[in-house]
Amino acid sequence: MNTFSQLFEPRSIAVVGVSDDAARPGSQAVRALLANGFSGKLYPVNPKYPAFEGLPCFPSVAAIPESIDVVVIGVPAKGVLAVLEDCAAKKVPFAVILSGGFRESGPEGIERERRMLEIAREGNIRLIGPNCLGFVNVHASVYAAFGSMTREPKLQRGSVSLVTQSGGFGYSIALACAEAGIGFRHVVATGNESDIDTIQLIDALLDDDKTQCIVAYIEGTSDGRALLDVGRRALAAGKPVLLWKGGVTEQGARAAASHTASMTGSYDFYRAMFKQTGIVEIAELHEAVDYLRAFAPAKYPAGRGVVVMGVSGGSAIVFADAGERVGMDMIELSPETQARLAEVVPNIGAVHNPIDLTAGYFSKANQDKLELALRAALDDPKAASICVNLATTGKSGCLAAAEVFRKVARDTDKPIVVFSSAPASEVGDALRILDEARIPVFASPSRAARALAVLATYRERQLSIAADTGARLDDAAVVIDPSLAAILGAGGALSEAQSKALLEAAGVPVTKDIIVQDARAAELDSASFPVVVKIVSQDIPHKTEVGGVKVGIADRAALTAAIDEVLGNARQHVPDARIDGVLVAPMIRGGFELIAGVVNDEVFGPVVVVGAGGIYAELLKDTSCRLAPFGIDTARQMLDELQCRPILNGARGKPPLDVDAAARVLASLSQFAWATRDDVMEVDINPLFVLEHGVMAADALVVPFGAQLAH
Amino acid sequence: MNTFSQLFEPRSIAVVGVSDDAARPGSQAVRALLANGFSGKLYPVNPKYPAFEGLPCFPSVAAIPESIDVVVIGVPAKGVLAVLEDCAAKKVPFAVILSGGFRESGPEGIERERRMLEIAREGNIRLIGPNCLGFVNVHASVYAAFGSMTREPKLQRGSVSLVTQSGGFGYSIALACAEAGIGFRHVVATGNESDIDTIQLIDALLDDDKTQCIVAYIEGTSDGRALLDVGRRALAAGKPVLLWKGGVTEQGARAAASHTASMTGSYDFYRAMFKQTGIVEIAELHEAVDYLRAFAPAKYPAGRGVVVMGVSGGSAIVFADAGERVGMDMIELSPETQARLAEVVPNIGAVHNPIDLTAGYFSKANQDKLELALRAALDDPKAASICVNLATTGKSGCLAAAEVFRKVARDTDKPIVVFSSAPASEVGDALRILDEARIPVFASPSRAARALAVLATYRERQLSIAADTGARLDDAAVVIDPSLAAILGAGGALSEAQSKALLEAAGVPVTKDIIVQDARAAELDSASFPVVVKIVSQDIPHKTEVGGVKVGIADRAALTAAIDEVLGNARQHVPDARIDGVLVAPMIRGGFELIAGVVNDEVFGPVVVVGAGGIYAELLKDTSCRLAPFGIDTARQMLDELQCRPILNGARGKPPLDVDAAARVLASLSQFAWATRDDVMEVDINPLFVLEHGVMAADALVVPFGAQLAH
Repeated sequence: MNTFSQLFEPRSIAVVGVSDDAARPGSQAVRALLANGFSGKLYPVNPKYPAFEGLPCFPSVAAIPESIDVVVIGVPAKGVLAVLEDCAAKKVPFAVILSGGFRESGPEGIERERRMLEIAREGNIRLIGPNCLGFVNVHASVYAAFGSMTREPKLQRGSVSLVTQSGGFGYSIALACAEAGIGFRHVVATGNESDIDTIQLIDALLDDDKTQCIVAYIEGTSDGRALLDVGRRALAAGKPVLLWKGGVTEQGARAAASHTASMTGSYDFYRAMFKQTGIVEIAELHEAVDYLRAFAPAKYPAGRGVVVMGVSGGSAIVFADAGERVGMDMIELSPETQARLAEVVPNIGAVHNPIDLTAGYFSKANQDKLELALRAALDDPKAASICVNLATTGKSGCLAAAEVFRKVARDTDKPIVVFSSAPASEVGDALRILDEARIPVFASPSRAARALAVLATYRERQLSIAADTGARLDDAAVVIDPSLAAILGAGGALSEAQSKALLEAAGVPVTKDIIVQDARAAELDSASFPVVVKIVSQDIPHKTEVGGVKVGIADRAALTAAIDEVLGNARQHVPDARIDGVLVAPMIRGGFELIAGVVNDEVFGPVVVVGAGGIYAELLKDTSCRLAPFGIDTARQMLDELQCRPILNGARGKPPLDVDAAARVLASLSQFAWATRDDVMEVDINPLFVLEHGVMAADALVVPFGAQLAH
Repeated sequence: MNTFSQLFEPRSIAVVGVSDDAARPGSQAVRALLANGFSGKLYPVNPKYPAFEGLPCFPSVAAIPESIDVVVIGVPAKGVLAVLEDCAAKKVPFAVILSGGFRESGPEGIERERRMLEIAREGNIRLIGPNCLGFVNVHASVYAAFGSMTREPKLQRGSVSLVTQSGGFGYSIALACAEAGIGFRHVVATGNESDIDTIQLIDALLDDDKTQCIVAYIEGTSDGRALLDVGRRALAAGKPVLLWKGGVTEQGARAAASHTASMTGSYDFYRAMFKQTGIVEIAELHEAVDYLRAFAPAKYPAGRGVVVMGVSGGSAIVFADAGERVGMDMIELSPETQARLAEVVPNIGAVHNPIDLTAGYFSKANQDKLELALRAALDDPKAASICVNLATTGKSGCLAAAEVFRKVARDTDKPIVVFSSAPASEVGDALRILDEARIPVFASPSRAARALAVLATYRERQLSIAADTGARLDDAAVVIDPSLAAILGAGGALSEAQSKALLEAAGVPVTKDIIVQDARAAELDSASFPVVVKIVSQDIPHKTEVGGVKVGIADRAALTAAIDEVLGNARQHVPDARIDGVLVAPMIRGGFELIAGVVNDEVFGPVVVVGAGGIYAELLKDTSCRLAPFGIDTARQMLDELQCRPILNGARGKPPLDVDAAARVLASLSQFAWATRDDVMEVDINPLFVLEHGVMAADALVVPFGAQLAH
């Protein structure tokens, strides 16, 4: 937080734009700072007023006799630049620009925002905003904000920080959490993010000792790599980041463009990035509440095995329904566990999972038995977490049960969570005990199941990302042939043969092709049939459409005819094309066709994509992707996500295909994509055959930036 | 409600099993009836007590001097039968058996439940339970219940009735709704449902004037057809049924079996049934709350076009994200609408969808403008519903806005819904106005979007089910050849040829096959090549595995060889098989392979299933199903649900395939399935080719009940 400590803990704040109009953002900010007991110096600024809210009012920032840490600017857009110039002259380090009328409001606003940023850069002023609600440091009672952020109810102190691009909607996340008893540290509404953005703030909050968990709402970012980096840093630091990405669908993205004109990257890439970091995606207000509760104790299940214990069968069924959908495993309890349970669970109950303690079990008299039951379940080797249903069995029963949970939770690293849909009037006292004991309570069995799955996923990611040595950035990992590097660097077009040479050097097996000028070439005598022939020309990217491809050629005579035919077709359909010859390649039989490639995205940089090939490719959109570079384990996860994945195990009695080789190639492709990120815009390997032994790229194209394609 | 009026509005209740143990279900029931002011006569029963809770206590039901409408039984299981015999002698019409220890508790309990039902049937007693929490008539203050149903908070009166198999979990749905301000009419926890079941109660509640909406939780039913019927009756009556089906996944179903041992049908069939009725599936507590709110005004959107209006861009984006996922369409507003909006929306706002009124717009001063804006949006021809974001803009602003919504909502049939994540302290007064005006309010934009989609779906189902004349049950619609009918009726096995003859008569086009005894048959000279040959034998169901199929036969010579080969293979592999000959069929080329069939399910009766054929069939489980019978529109919906559906439009430049013919065949198959429901266990048509013109069943098998298959 060092970078931003003067912002978040200012000794002095000037607010420009106060007036008798109580609704003005500046007026609201001064009143909020006063009402919440800001302990530093506060300077209202307006040349028309001698005083405001009992404080001396200054005609300008320049006129303030002392140094200022933060200037809050609430004047109309037209006046912002002059105030900022004043701030620069006075060497103010931070400004919070509440005013709207910038990028979001058309050409004039865009120019104003550009100039604003210029002044800030020249004057070494860091900016929050413009077009934002400001920020609140709940612990230090700094309310440099207006609107909903300054209204009732007041946030309680806690260890959650919120960063949001959208003030209105983002703050509703804070309100939902606050209603559920969650306390806050910092809340920052960043608006247009001209200068300081969400990612920088998350990064800073990772260094804030008092922030344990970060919630963010973003509509877009121009630097997906920075988000990847901060997400990994968060994972390593053990500080979960819950991120709500607005504008994920076509409709949503359209709404985003009209709202803040911020850039919306492809949602698929965001989702890939979440999987490669500790960022947990949320898309519901109650998910923020539930996951913050789940993460609070910082206990993570060492697996997906879960035991459910309670007094209502229906709840356990609903837990199981929801749990299966998110990959939680209702384990079978060991005979030993069942025997231990049988000693303390009534006969009409159940000692298998879900454990039915029977109605009325929760009572003061039963506390010892409940403790034994809970410990038996926790000791089961397959149990990674326990979920208990605190049903309404009367106030004293619930209280007695909660005391047992508290006692047992102290002695275990396995998460114990509770769900209870009982009314607060019945279980309120029990809930307070559980809250103090940091035992998360969820409002329904399905929400408990999903929260446990999030904890399990988080731990899986911690392990897999720590293990993924392929994710380390190493430009030297891939060697590029100097002549091809020169073509890449110059943005020239690459032929299939050149593309394959590049990829082969990077570790992607490619078909051994021969390029000949005509059907009489001597090399053709050594061809191993069947083969395919394809025209080679930088001017003919879509070879099939001009009759430039022939497949299934069985012998030498047919090969001669095929070569003559594709050369003839090419000359006829594209008379001006420079023809470099004809490529003769072995025809791959058997195996399964994938498509693999690289998209070098503006926001996320190089992303490796893999998908099912053939007719179902377009239809099913069966693809998965990850940000390059990554190692073989990540590549294996990508393949596991494909719907067509079971085919690779050997469909309909066929032998299993070489999934390891496919994963190795994806990892190699990711290293290539990273090493060539400045030059390569796109890679297409279609098809990539997965064979019984190994894989083989039958066609490939590497497209440099700026390559002129004859589309 | 006539059937159950004595149950729900009893003039007299006896409670058997009261005691000094306050926790006993009977004791709880008497206290609940007294505490809630039951206005009828109340007779506690226990031979050991002269009085209970100030009422005279009777030694037995028989000893009560007056007639009794309902006997509530809370004695231990062993004593229930004797009490029931007493009730029979006294001609008590209804008993509510709270006691556990029946079917759910093992062999002894199963026998006890059988005998219990026997006594009830003989004595004309209708039963609720056993193993249940009882029932509450909120309006008449009848609390014939115990446990959570009798604890605080007390349900308010309203128009929602709840029926639940699981007392504990089911009642938590009522509690969640009650917390959201929703009032109730009847709440019935049915437990083991030995006699009266959820379906009968829903049916009765459809006739209850004071019930507008029904919520049910079931883990299973043995009569899916009854649920279909009651679901359609509910749709016709305009009373939405929200149904939570517990035990939908493998884990969930296992938990169900261990809980009530009730039968869990296949979840796919349940989901098909929901689509064919007005039953709305729920799987979250908040869905019950949201959908009840959405249905309350009984206004349904005439389409999926929606307009969002508010003061926060972020909320609109989140609405759009969630809306797209559930098929809501953020329409483009007409130029006329935009012009009307431009007159009342500030320049820095937006007059396209989502409409941005700008922060601070909601105010007393702006009421006229807001009204004009709202009316402009409602008048847009594409707008079927309007969703308004009531953000925190201060109490008076929210109140002013709510007054406008109330005024405008009176004049339109289009649903106006509100979402507001603002704290109750800010918007409480506004919410009360909206509640009175029956304008549904949701806690987040995504929940509003999903609720609107549910309303739109409900209306679509009302229209499509009313239009589906094919869904009318008509046994005479299909004519079965008498000789084949005889085989069916006798549970004999049918050959492929017989199966095809049956299906062809029912309207399913089949290949024109020839059956010959050997390769010298004269009919073979007229075969149109290419053909396939298949062995015909009732004893060889899996022909391919024994070499009984040859495909791609191009000429007469090859045909002779092929017939000799399959006959030889069959004799070699299955020496005892009765061989009826060899089937020679034209080989279908082109088109797309589907699989179609009928499963005659124990619970749901005949269900028609269609899916993608070929290798992807098993892999993708790309199937859809509907309960037979149905018409062509329903069949078209089934096809539209398939992932492979786009292929039928003509993949990769191929001509479109005959989707209408495919739909006609599915509808015909459904009529056949219904007409033969007593005899036919299964139909498999694999493959069913969809061609450019028409469809063709290339292979088919009709399996009667009891057919002995040599699997």
